[in-house]
Amino acid sequence: MPAKKPLILVTNDDGITAPGIRALIKVMKTLGDVVVVAPDSPQSGMGHAITLSDNLYCDPVKLKETEKHTEYSCSGTPVDCVKIATQEILKRKPDLCVSGINHGSNSSINVIYSGTMSAAVEAGTQQIPAIGFSHMDYSLTSNMEPILKYVKSITKMVLSKGLPKGVVLNVNLPDLPEDKIKGIKICRQAKAYWREKFDRRITPQGRDYYWLTGEFVNEDQGEDTDEWALKKGYVSVVPVQFDLTAHHVIPEINNWKLS
Amino acid sequence: MPAKKPLILVTNDDGITAPGIRALIKVMKTLGDVVVVAPDSPQSGMGHAITLSDNLYCDPVKLKETEKHTEYSCSGTPVDCVKIATQEILKRKPDLCVSGINHGSNSSINVIYSGTMSAAVEAGTQQIPAIGFSHMDYSLTSNMEPILKYVKSITKMVLSKGLPKGVVLNVNLPDLPEDKIKGIKICRQAKAYWREKFDRRITPQGRDYYWLTGEFVNEDQGEDTDEWALKKGYVSVVPVQFDLTAHHVIPEINNWKLS
Repeated sequence: MPAKKPLILVTNDDGITAPGIRALIKVMKTLGDVVVVAPDSPQSGMGHAITLSDNLYCDPVKLKETEKHTEYSCSGTPVDCVKIATQEILKRKPDLCVSGINHGSNSSINVIYSGTMSAAVEAGTQQIPAIGFSHMDYSLTSNMEPILKYVKSITKMVLSKGLPKGVVLNVNLPDLPEDKIKGIKICRQAKAYWREKFDRRITPQGRDYYWLTGEFVNEDQGEDTDEWALKKGYVSVVPVQFDLTAHHVIPEINNWKLS
Repeated sequence: MPAKKPLILVTNDDGITAPGIRALIKVMKTLGDVVVVAPDSPQSGMGHAITLSDNLYCDPVKLKETEKHTEYSCSGTPVDCVKIATQEILKRKPDLCVSGINHGSNSSINVIYSGTMSAAVEAGTQQIPAIGFSHMDYSLTSNMEPILKYVKSITKMVLSKGLPKGVVLNVNLPDLPEDKIKGIKICRQAKAYWREKFDRRITPQGRDYYWLTGEFVNEDQGEDTDEWALKKGYVSVVPVQFDLTAHHVIPEINNWKLS
């Protein structure tokens, strides 16, 4: 860890008042100087969305009079928050960006839908070490106490070691009492997907509308996956990259002789 | 290509009335049975966002009386369109999903912000071969005639060969006259990023607000990148995966001995 206190940008996708980000801020204040730039309202499932066709507000707020650090409430998506933080709010590049603690899992394929993880990925594209933290309990009243020591130890490690270029961490934490959490596993993303079910309803005016619901399908039984680790009571850590090139299939597609 | 006509799902992120999707539909109708499910309004920059906190409308529309195929206009994001198409609208799994033709580039890091590409990726997660097409001209009045033969030849190839599991194609097409387009190159995603600039303004009521603008920074001069190919006048084809695991760094992070 640098001799100078590290500068830590904190964001999330559940919105600035969510208990998960309040818990994350508390942990980060023990490790560095904290600036919070988070959405003014819930932004779950926003993926890597950015606001192109509308203006953005980003106002300083004080949620508790006792807070010493600075917070900003932003009308945009989690990715907007990271962009406006690094460009408009922070005086220097932060040493770390943390996102979460999300109320709900972002393991496996959920990484691509997750606003929490997209904020971390956005920081990564700007060459800022970044971690997304998610708790396996969707409730806003969940007990996050047992997981905070893992949030702290992983953050300390990243502050001290840095992260490989082009990589951020996706950390999922089980909803278990402290003595049932078995430790930390470095994993790959399980190859799972969502099988959608739409709940069709009819408006009072007679027009069909739908609610998106779905069933998570995991046919990947690998013991090196995040799903396996979480099921067994471990904290899962998946290194995530944003070079999406499937390098391994380039030779095969070149064989098509398209040109 | 199967003896039976293939079933092709068409979507985009510029909205169902955009000239790009109209051009894509026209090409696809020469190759198979077409069903269109596209956003009712522009959804650029929506990334992999899904609609979790609101209901979705998805209504059949006929934009031209002469059209024989079926179209649906959806109030959601491009990813919502794919989900509702495969679950609620189509009688069977489509043989292909194509998205676009986007008005504007989705090369390099833009793949993670792009609604066009996220629709293709969503289809990929459902094991449907998928291609996103983007034209390097942002104007809604651009001339797409010169690129349509490439759209058709790449689509025919995917219909006949399929795609490797877990991979979709990101195709970007130069804004050049037909005789200046040099052919097709299979590429990797250039390691580039956006340097944001926020345009700060003041509301009539005195509150600061921002418009997101930015500068695309590409320091990756690799001749195997999509940026290089496009600059040289080629159509770029990047195979894109949605397993985001940075497999190559797992041994290094395991060495941290976090647990």
